[in-house]
Amino acid sequence: MDEKENGTGTGEATGVESVSEGRRDFLKGTAAVGAATASLTAIGFPHITPAQAAEMKPGRIGSANHYYVPASAATVHWGYFSKILRPLVEVGSGDFVTVESLTHHANDDRERMIEGDPGLESVYFWAKDKKNVDRRGAGPMDASIYGRGAGEGFGVHILTGPVYVRDARPGDVLEVRILDVYPRPSANPKYKGKAFGSNAAAWWGFHYNDLLDEPKPREVITIYELSAEGDRDWARAVYNFRWVPQTDPDGVVHEIIDYPGVPVDHSLVKENHGVLRNVRVPIRPHFGVIGLAPKEEDMVDSIPPGYFGGNIDDWRIGKGATMYYPVAVDGGLLSVGDSHAAQGDSELAGTAIEMSLTGVFQLILHKQRDLRGTLLQNLQYPLLETQDEWAVHGFSYANYLAELGPKAQQEIYKNSSVDKAMRDAFRKMRHFLMTTRGLSEDEAISLMSVAADFGVTQVVDGNWGVHATLKKRVFSGA
Amino acid sequence: MDEKENGTGTGEATGVESVSEGRRDFLKGTAAVGAATASLTAIGFPHITPAQAAEMKPGRIGSANHYYVPASAATVHWGYFSKILRPLVEVGSGDFVTVESLTHHANDDRERMIEGDPGLESVYFWAKDKKNVDRRGAGPMDASIYGRGAGEGFGVHILTGPVYVRDARPGDVLEVRILDVYPRPSANPKYKGKAFGSNAAAWWGFHYNDLLDEPKPREVITIYELSAEGDRDWARAVYNFRWVPQTDPDGVVHEIIDYPGVPVDHSLVKENHGVLRNVRVPIRPHFGVIGLAPKEEDMVDSIPPGYFGGNIDDWRIGKGATMYYPVAVDGGLLSVGDSHAAQGDSELAGTAIEMSLTGVFQLILHKQRDLRGTLLQNLQYPLLETQDEWAVHGFSYANYLAELGPKAQQEIYKNSSVDKAMRDAFRKMRHFLMTTRGLSEDEAISLMSVAADFGVTQVVDGNWGVHATLKKRVFSGA
Repeated sequence: MDEKENGTGTGEATGVESVSEGRRDFLKGTAAVGAATASLTAIGFPHITPAQAAEMKPGRIGSANHYYVPASAATVHWGYFSKILRPLVEVGSGDFVTVESLTHHANDDRERMIEGDPGLESVYFWAKDKKNVDRRGAGPMDASIYGRGAGEGFGVHILTGPVYVRDARPGDVLEVRILDVYPRPSANPKYKGKAFGSNAAAWWGFHYNDLLDEPKPREVITIYELSAEGDRDWARAVYNFRWVPQTDPDGVVHEIIDYPGVPVDHSLVKENHGVLRNVRVPIRPHFGVIGLAPKEEDMVDSIPPGYFGGNIDDWRIGKGATMYYPVAVDGGLLSVGDSHAAQGDSELAGTAIEMSLTGVFQLILHKQRDLRGTLLQNLQYPLLETQDEWAVHGFSYANYLAELGPKAQQEIYKNSSVDKAMRDAFRKMRHFLMTTRGLSEDEAISLMSVAADFGVTQVVDGNWGVHATLKKRVFSGA
Repeated sequence: MDEKENGTGTGEATGVESVSEGRRDFLKGTAAVGAATASLTAIGFPHITPAQAAEMKPGRIGSANHYYVPASAATVHWGYFSKILRPLVEVGSGDFVTVESLTHHANDDRERMIEGDPGLESVYFWAKDKKNVDRRGAGPMDASIYGRGAGEGFGVHILTGPVYVRDARPGDVLEVRILDVYPRPSANPKYKGKAFGSNAAAWWGFHYNDLLDEPKPREVITIYELSAEGDRDWARAVYNFRWVPQTDPDGVVHEIIDYPGVPVDHSLVKENHGVLRNVRVPIRPHFGVIGLAPKEEDMVDSIPPGYFGGNIDDWRIGKGATMYYPVAVDGGLLSVGDSHAAQGDSELAGTAIEMSLTGVFQLILHKQRDLRGTLLQNLQYPLLETQDEWAVHGFSYANYLAELGPKAQQEIYKNSSVDKAMRDAFRKMRHFLMTTRGLSEDEAISLMSVAADFGVTQVVDGNWGVHATLKKRVFSGA
C-alpha cells in the first residue's frame, strides 16, 4: 500500500495533511517498537485523566486532528451494535481518536473499579427510580422474554461510540491502528496506583457443565490487580468469590450472571483472599471488541463476532496492532469496548481479565476503488496485522446474521463449533494468500500446512473463533 | 524434581553415574539456549554420517552411556506401534541415544531424498520380487481389505526403534530430552550441502473436499529444499506436482496416496518449478512421532496419537524440548519417526515438510513410586516442557484405543473433532494445574481463561489435536 495515497483524500478535506503525514510517519515507527504514552504526549497528545474527561464532550482536542471520546452514560451503548445510533464524533481519514473503554464487569467490585470515577459512576448509576443506561443488550426493552431487564442482556459489552468516519461507504475498508493502550486507574484513594479487573468463570463458559468439584455448576469471579503505573507486566489475583443470587435495584433476582452491570452485594458473598498465590499473569492489554456497525439488523447483540469485527476476543488486538474492517454502512460507525488486561487463546471460562482501558487509535479509510492490487482487495472479514504477523479470524459462521435466517441472533448460540470456525479460518487464510499474495490455490495450501498456525480464539461467544496467523518474514525472500 | 535423585537408580546399574551427571548438567544448560551439534561432539558424542552409520549395528558407541540407532530395513517398523517388537537396544535411565529418523515421503523425489544414502536405500528397496520392508501399516499382510499392499497403509510413518529402557514398568514416566536435531543431507552429489523434504496436500487433508480450482479433488506434492549445513533458518519450495496414478513394483495402481513409500515415476508427473517464489518457510525441525508402545493392542496404526504419545505432530517437540510419556508396557519401547522440517499448527493439508532428521535424546526414567509431589504425579497423557512453556496435548479421544471399543482403530477416523479435542485439552490442563501446582479447580479455571493458550495441533491424524500452552513465568511470583 502507498501510505501517502491512502491519506490524501482526508488531508484535502481537513487541511491538516502535513501535520498528519509527519505524525503518521513518526507513529508508524514508534508503534512498531511499542510507543509509550509519553511519546504520544510529547508530540501533542494531551494526557487526560478520567476526572478531566468527565468534564468533556466527545470532540476535537489539542491538535487539529485528534479527537477524544470520554466514556459516560451519554457516550456508551451497552450490549449491542446498531447502524441507527447517532455518531458521537465525525473524523476524517488519518485522524486520531482516543476512546475510553469501560469494562462491563466493574460492578463485580464497585469499591475498586467504580467508586470515585465519574465516567464509571455515570454509566453504572442504577437506583430504583433511575438507571442511567437502561438498555443493556439488543433484546426487548420490557424484558418480556426472560424478565432480566431492559435489553435482556442479549449482548453485554459497554461500547463507546460510534465514531463516524467521513466518506466511509459500504465496500470501503477501515484501517484501525492501535497506537497506545493504557489502564484506567482505580479512582478510590484506598487503591491509588492500582488498577483492577474481573474474571468471571460463568455459565456461558466452556467448562461450566464439566466441573469436578461441588457445588456443580457454579459461577466464580476472581478479582485481579495490576499496576496502574505501567511498571509491572503482570497481574495478580486479589480474591475470588462464588456468585450467589443478587437482587438488582429494580428488584429482579439474578440467580446467575444473566444481566450486565448487576451490583454485587459483597455482604452476600464470601471473599477468598490469597488465591493463586505466587501466580503472575502476563498482561496482554487489548480490546475484546472493536467493530463497525453491521448492515443486516438495526439491533445486533454484541456477543457474537462477525465480518464487521466486534467481539473477536483476540489478545493480539492490542498496542502496535492494526485491524482492517470491511465497511458495511455509511460512516462505518466504529465502537470500542470489552477491554481486557489479559486473556488466553480460547477465553475458556467465559471472560478475560475484564478491565477498563483507554485506547489511542488512528483511522485510515481505504476507498473501494483503491483496493485493487493491495492486500485489502475484496476484504470481507476482519484482518489483523502486527509487527511480525498477519492474522485472519475464522468463526463458526463468517456472517451468521446473513447465514442463519431471520432468527440468526438466537440460532447462532445453538450452532457454536470450533470445527466450523477452523473451516472458516482455512478459507479466509487461503483467500488472503491467493488474493493479496497472488499464490495459486496449491501454493496457498502447501504454505498453510507448513507455516500458518491455527489457534482457538474463543469458545464462549456464540460464534466461536479460530484464528490463523502467518509470519510476515515468510515473504521476505528475494 | 530433584535432578540428582532421578538419575540415581540408573547410575548404580551402569556404573557411569559420574560421567552422566556431569554431562547432564552441561547439556541442561546448553540445550536450553540451543546446543549446537558441535557442543555435543566436543564432549564425546562422535559425529556419525549416514554412510558410516550404514556399517553399524544399533548399540553403544563412544562414551559408556551413548547409544546409536541407525535407520535401515533392520531397525525400522513402518506404520505401526507394537508392544511385541523386539527392542534394538536396551538403555538405562540417564543414557543418551541418537536415533536416525527417515521420512516416509522420500520416494516422492527419490533422486533428492534417497539416492546414494545406504539407510534410505535399504528401507525403501522394493522390486517385484523383493521388498525390504514389506509390512507398512497395522493392517493385514495379505492386503485383503483394500489391496493396497502389506499392512494396507493403516499407519504410514517409518519409525526407528524400539528402544527398551531398563526397569521401565507400567505406571512409570519416561522423560525424553531432545538435545539435538539435525538434518540428513542429500547423499546425491548433485545436491551436495542440501537437504530436501516433501509436503503432500493429500486426501486426508482438511482442505481436500473444499477446493476452489479444478480439477477437484486433487493431491499435490511440493518439494522443499533446506541447507544441510545449518546456515539458513528457512526452507524454499523447489517445485510441485499433481499426483497421478502410480504403479508400484508389485503392480498395484495407486490412484491416490494410499500406501506409503510408493515410488513416484517422474516421467508421469509434471514438475512445476518456480512455485512459491520469494517465499521462505521458517524451519521448525521436530519429530511428528515420538512414542511408547501402547498396551491395548499388539498392532497399532501409527497415525492417531494417544496417551502413549505417537503422532502428536506438534512442532514444539524439537531441539531443547522435553517430553514426558506414561509408560504402558515393560521397557516403555520408544520409537521415533515422522521427522519434519517445518509445520504449522493444524498441519492443514495432511503433512508437514516431511524430511529425514537425526535426533539426540537423553532418556530419564521416573519410577511411579517417586512421582508423588512432582509434576509427573498421575500423568496419564504426554506432557511437553520447553524452555518457556508447559504444554498438554488434547485429542478427540484421550485414549481412543480404550474408548472406542474393539473397532477403535477404524472408528477413530469417523469421530475426528476439534471440539472434542478442545474439551480434552481443557481437562488435561486443569489436571496439570490442580495436580502439579496444587491449585483449586476455581483457581485453575480462572488461570486458564486469562493465561493459557489453546491451539489446533492437527486436523489430519484421525484423533485430532488441540494443545494448551502455559508460560512457566506464570509461576514466578513470590
